[in-house]
Amino acid sequence: VLNELQPISEPGRRFVALAEEHAADFATRAAQHDRDGTFPHENFDAMKQSGFLAAPVPAELGGLGLFSMHDMAVGISRLARGDGSTSIAVYMHLFSVSIMHRMLRSVQSGGSGPPAPALEGLLRGVAGGQIVASITGTEAGTTIRYPRTEVTPSGDGTYLLNGHKIFGTLSPYATMFFVGSRLADGDGGYESVFCAVPRNAAGVDVRDNWDALGMRASGSGDVVYTNVRLPAASVIRSRRPLGAESTVNDPGANLGLIAAFLGIAEAAAATVVDAAKSRRRGPTDRLLAERHTTQHLIGELEVDLQVCRAMIARNGLAFDDALARHPGGAPPEVQEDLERRHQATKYVVNRRAIDAVDRALTASGGAGYMSKHPLSRLYRDVRAGPFMQPYAPMEALETIGRTVLGQPPSDEL
Amino acid sequence: VLNELQPISEPGRRFVALAEEHAADFATRAAQHDRDGTFPHENFDAMKQSGFLAAPVPAELGGLGLFSMHDMAVGISRLARGDGSTSIAVYMHLFSVSIMHRMLRSVQSGGSGPPAPALEGLLRGVAGGQIVASITGTEAGTTIRYPRTEVTPSGDGTYLLNGHKIFGTLSPYATMFFVGSRLADGDGGYESVFCAVPRNAAGVDVRDNWDALGMRASGSGDVVYTNVRLPAASVIRSRRPLGAESTVNDPGANLGLIAAFLGIAEAAAATVVDAAKSRRRGPTDRLLAERHTTQHLIGELEVDLQVCRAMIARNGLAFDDALARHPGGAPPEVQEDLERRHQATKYVVNRRAIDAVDRALTASGGAGYMSKHPLSRLYRDVRAGPFMQPYAPMEALETIGRTVLGQPPSDEL
Amino acid sequence: VLNELQPISEPGRRFVALAEEHAADFATRAAQHDRDGTFPHENFDAMKQSGFLAAPVPAELGGLGLFSMHDMAVGISRLARGDGSTSIAVYMHLFSVSIMHRMLRSVQSGGSGPPAPALEGLLRGVAGGQIVASITGTEAGTTIRYPRTEVTPSGDGTYLLNGHKIFGTLSPYATMFFVGSRLADGDGGYESVFCAVPRNAAGVDVRDNWDALGMRASGSGDVVYTNVRLPAASVIRSRRPLGAESTVNDPGANLGLIAAFLGIAEAAAATVVDAAKSRRRGPTDRLLAERHTTQHLIGELEVDLQVCRAMIARNGLAFDDALARHPGGAPPEVQEDLERRHQATKYVVNRRAIDAVDRALTASGGAGYMSKHPLSRLYRDVRAGPFMQPYAPMEALETIGRTVLGQPPSDEL
Amino acid sequence: VLNELQPISEPGRRFVALAEEHAADFATRAAQHDRDGTFPHENFDAMKQSGFLAAPVPAELGGLGLFSMHDMAVGISRLARGDGSTSIAVYMHLFSVSIMHRMLRSVQSGGSGPPAPALEGLLRGVAGGQIVASITGTEAGTTIRYPRTEVTPSGDGTYLLNGHKIFGTLSPYATMFFVGSRLADGDGGYESVFCAVPRNAAGVDVRDNWDALGMRASGSGDVVYTNVRLPAASVIRSRRPLGAESTVNDPGANLGLIAAFLGIAEAAAATVVDAAKSRRRGPTDRLLAERHTTQHLIGELEVDLQVCRAMIARNGLAFDDALARHPGGAPPEVQEDLERRHQATKYVVNRRAIDAVDRALTASGGAGYMSKHPLSRLYRDVRAGPFMQPYAPMEALETIGRTVLGQPPSDEL
Repeated sequence: VLNELQPISEPGRRFVALAEEHAADFATRAAQHDRDGTFPHENFDAMKQSGFLAAPVPAELGGLGLFSMHDMAVGISRLARGDGSTSIAVYMHLFSVSIMHRMLRSVQSGGSGPPAPALEGLLRGVAGGQIVASITGTEAGTTIRYPRTEVTPSGDGTYLLNGHKIFGTLSPYATMFFVGSRLADGDGGYESVFCAVPRNAAGVDVRDNWDALGMRASGSGDVVYTNVRLPAASVIRSRRPLGAESTVNDPGANLGLIAAFLGIAEAAAATVVDAAKSRRRGPTDRLLAERHTTQHLIGELEVDLQVCRAMIARNGLAFDDALARHPGGAPPEVQEDLERRHQATKYVVNRRAIDAVDRALTASGGAGYMSKHPLSRLYRDVRAGPFMQPYAPMEALETIGRTVLGQPPSDEL
Repeated sequence: VLNELQPISEPGRRFVALAEEHAADFATRAAQHDRDGTFPHENFDAMKQSGFLAAPVPAELGGLGLFSMHDMAVGISRLARGDGSTSIAVYMHLFSVSIMHRMLRSVQSGGSGPPAPALEGLLRGVAGGQIVASITGTEAGTTIRYPRTEVTPSGDGTYLLNGHKIFGTLSPYATMFFVGSRLADGDGGYESVFCAVPRNAAGVDVRDNWDALGMRASGSGDVVYTNVRLPAASVIRSRRPLGAESTVNDPGANLGLIAAFLGIAEAAAATVVDAAKSRRRGPTDRLLAERHTTQHLIGELEVDLQVCRAMIARNGLAFDDALARHPGGAPPEVQEDLERRHQATKYVVNRRAIDAVDRALTASGGAGYMSKHPLSRLYRDVRAGPFMQPYAPMEALETIGRTVLGQPPSDEL
Repeated sequence: VLNELQPISEPGRRFVALAEEHAADFATRAAQHDRDGTFPHENFDAMKQSGFLAAPVPAELGGLGLFSMHDMAVGISRLARGDGSTSIAVYMHLFSVSIMHRMLRSVQSGGSGPPAPALEGLLRGVAGGQIVASITGTEAGTTIRYPRTEVTPSGDGTYLLNGHKIFGTLSPYATMFFVGSRLADGDGGYESVFCAVPRNAAGVDVRDNWDALGMRASGSGDVVYTNVRLPAASVIRSRRPLGAESTVNDPGANLGLIAAFLGIAEAAAATVVDAAKSRRRGPTDRLLAERHTTQHLIGELEVDLQVCRAMIARNGLAFDDALARHPGGAPPEVQEDLERRHQATKYVVNRRAIDAVDRALTASGGAGYMSKHPLSRLYRDVRAGPFMQPYAPMEALETIGRTVLGQPPSDEL
Repeated sequence: VLNELQPISEPGRRFVALAEEHAADFATRAAQHDRDGTFPHENFDAMKQSGFLAAPVPAELGGLGLFSMHDMAVGISRLARGDGSTSIAVYMHLFSVSIMHRMLRSVQSGGSGPPAPALEGLLRGVAGGQIVASITGTEAGTTIRYPRTEVTPSGDGTYLLNGHKIFGTLSPYATMFFVGSRLADGDGGYESVFCAVPRNAAGVDVRDNWDALGMRASGSGDVVYTNVRLPAASVIRSRRPLGAESTVNDPGANLGLIAAFLGIAEAAAATVVDAAKSRRRGPTDRLLAERHTTQHLIGELEVDLQVCRAMIARNGLAFDDALARHPGGAPPEVQEDLERRHQATKYVVNRRAIDAVDRALTASGGAGYMSKHPLSRLYRDVRAGPFMQPYAPMEALETIGRTVLGQPPSDEL
């Protein structure tokens, strides 16, 4: 693919190469899973087998040692060319693992965090083939910063978790859920907490109810927690009031999730560029590639892709650079800068990926509107982007503007 | 609905009122037909029953006497609020009938055309409850101006028709097809001809193979003609070479088809405006309607709708005005002006209706992405617009530009 | 001009014809006044002479009897083709006169308002060749609904006016100013009032300080009022608190002001379409009109113009229709509907007129960037649009959205 | 400035630091030179003095050793914050010098090119304080690839140059012109040649006739060559037919020229962000920075800037990377890839910089429309971007599309 994103680290190169292999395979099943709305368990089995799922585990703990979030994003974009649903679902896992890796480096650099042996144990588990985690945070009627899912002390040192999460991507395959929750602070307020919940704990109900316009194979149904009993060690306290957290507590959080939509747009572009080189149209039967209306449209499409790539690349490089400079945690002004870039990247890529697929559909001349054509799936899949956390488009613009103007974040957008 | 389009003629008012009644009914079945990809026969039975299908028949011949193309467009936009698929399918019929009505007026005003009694007969047939027609013109690999479907003289005064049409909207219900075709002129060239083909003629194969991203209940499958024998009277000669016809030989042709997409956008808007008035979101639980990001988005959406309405209204009024001024046929410069407006209207409405539904989806906050939500259907249906004849967006712009610059039409866009 | 706006009334036709004659004349001086930033007194003298300035005066009182706001807008758009500055300046006068005409009709229909003889007197004055009015409302640091210009009772039955208005378009030529002001209500609040101030009253300082990017010949400098003594009859009380007025107390208020920007865009289009028909470019020396990139660009430009015209036409027709149906004043829901349309029209036309001139500049291939080329003026003039009252673009969108969602107007956009 | 572009090389850091110092100084005179249309000789004297004009000269030859085109672009963007006209004029010189530097490296790496001592001599001259060059290529009525300026052999081994160039940016200050020309090949065709013409040669007429909408201090008037006698050594033969050259024979050619427009947009943004933090508006007198419409607008503006930066950064890094990998000249497929990125970058940055300044103007609330406000100059300056070589927007899109589709370049866009 012309001027595509390239990994910058050696583990990144292996990760991206694996992503390309998997993508070619997953593409053969994407239409079927989309039609049936089924979760592609075999894709995840293959990624477990290849070591892809352990990529962010340090090499000495048995993984690929992937640490660059730039390269993580590049690999996810490649995978998304084959199957968008799989790419966002696997990212839920990979991102969680990458956080463990980062915490380990931070602790090793003298930063605060969980003890290194615990983190190493978790990472070794992933290297051993376990799917350890999925973060599921969205709830109906509130924002991700203000969950209503709640843990309550049961009096015996354990806690009970209750709540109803939606958009639980990867839930059909995950073995453990990290659940954003709240804990009453005794003063009428709440503390923000995270809970680590094994899938097989009593009271965990993973519902097979995902039926959406697109991303139909992402397994994004509801997960309901009813009086799930958790040991204290599984309730990770933040010691901060609900909402006080930065909107993106990790400003590289969703870069891979953003990159998935670039991959979808790239797949759409490839489809129509290839077709234009062989399809002819009457009365003159000239190739579409020789027609200037097609050239104009493909020019616009290429610009879309280049803009998406440039935003992801600059964002990813800046994030990696900040990690390298501040292994123990970046200062607030760096965090704020990274967040602002991250939100702008999300805003731009989500929209231009949609535009790109729309142009591809136009360039397909009606063929892409047929259910059997891959574009009809890509058009539905790519529209999921703006719904992804943390911000809807309007809210993103206003949040970006607020920080540029030196205003505090707002809960009332 | 705020500032919605209003009919300007008395028959138009009755037509629009019927459209609204039907829309309310059809809306109850739209999701089911969309899911199953089935043709809504019961909708057409109801429209036959109500007199809606005979609306463009003169009152003295048993119809509503609808003559204003402006009002036709208004009524179609209303119907599309209930079911987009039905609205475009019924338009195929209504438009054909309206042409008969116009021909009759033209002949009665001293213009050229088929004999009045023949036209009256056809119109009485429609009033009597018959579905007389559907125009099916698109073929793979060529443009609508250069059909490869061909009639050949059989030597006995009859003709044989052979060809393969796609996007045969309304084909499951139509009783007669008007087929754009070509006839060899003996000099290596072709004459443009129209054929009137009864559905039950031998060699007509109406295929039940419509399976698309949207407009799934429109019955737009292939219709294949294999050695269909036609009497000479059913082969309507143009005496003009293929391609010489104006791109839109009737510049009001697709105004109703354009208006259908306004109706879809209006339905999308209504859904989210209603929801915003009752849905609340944490942490403050204020109504979405009270949030300025929602207000901004709904403001943009309202502007989209107003632009679509203004373009359709101005186009329709100009078309009706030209008909009134030139009952026997408008001079070329008027035709050209009407065509340029028509193409601009199509270009603008197709795109802004898509934008409007996209904004509605954003405003729905994820709810609209679910298969069970009407927006997930509207988002797929509305994307059909730019594929409608006569021009794709790039080609429309260039064609408009050419006429403004005094350049002849081009077959090589 | 292709598919240009056409007047619908007989007085409108005369008004538009005069506008076209004046435009051709004014065009010859537009560049000079723009360069020097001088007010075109001779243009106004010519318009006084021709009867153009008395157009909205009823025929029986000596004017053209222009009543249709649609046709007013059409005429202003024509005039703006010759000189944008003149068109917006003269509109300040014409609009004020049209309000007098409307008030007279309202009073004659039994509506409330000033006594008919007083209105007739004012209108006869205008017919006699007087420039009676200019409305100047903008102030630095506040909005038009909350003026800080204030009238205070002097104790002897007269009032003193103090304030500093900016953007006082037409001030070099006006003989009387209508000044939006406030009057303390004794309870710490203010009543909204209008003052009629003769230009030659002591304390009126019309400053020759207009020096802007564009609209340089519009005479839009400051007007400062220092202890201007006014008789009670010149202080028109609203009996309503400041800000309680509808944002546009007359929803047809600025339609002509909007239409001026269409005229500027039309002039820009004409320039490049003409040039493209005669200019050639190497190496092939084909006409620009024959090049598809030019055709595409001109196609986009034509669409811009059509959208502007459609919005203005639909808005104008709706306004005229409401006046005809409700001669004594339209009910609130009609007013609200008209305002929403008006704001959408302003938003769309201001932006697309800018886009159109930008495209024309691109199509000029660099020539238009030269100071001697008319496009370099049109590009600066057209950018004034979004600054016109009542709303900036963002505020317009949000205000539109609020009314669609049933929310009250806001002072905190 | 938030997340601004940063240099990646040590010489680049010095170059950028100098650019920032000069920008602060030049900003104090920018308004005056803009008003008067005068060339800022004192700015160039200052840049000569500081060593800025010798930046691309290797350190061992007396310059800063600037080699990274990424960093060149960063520095130009900084300079443009102070004065856009100066930034594009100085780039004409700096770019020429950077090509000499690159040729020297290429020759030293075994690539073909002029002898190293000659190049070193030229570069030492620049380090010694000479302004050696300006490339002036545009002519009326043809494209940059098909100059009509012609050199003809005079029979005595010398050549005569005749032609009329326009847009001769920096011509008031340059001491030598590099002139794109043609030379008859004896078969009715032409060879593409470059001529090095001393400013003081007989027959060189540098006209003081630059009077444009913006970039008024860039000295971009005509340069006319009439029978200018040149030694053979000053006529640099390409041995290739006219038009055969790649459209951008050096795909990093205009990156600095593109970056100038980012700088202008950044200056516009800074102006309104600062103002919003201190300006208040009635009736509530809240800061503009606290208003969500301002926040939304500033959010859009920040996204514009981020997109521009990301495109320039990715493009610059790729260009530097290709230079490092291929010191003797990059292979065709790499050249093509770089060109496609370059054109996309130009297309995106030119447009979004215009959009950004437009938003800033809106955010200024009318203040920016005044001649005395810097935005009124920035708005005119930034519009020059799309006229810069090599491609207008439509042509850029189509050229990009052609290469993606594997089509050859076209002379007929």
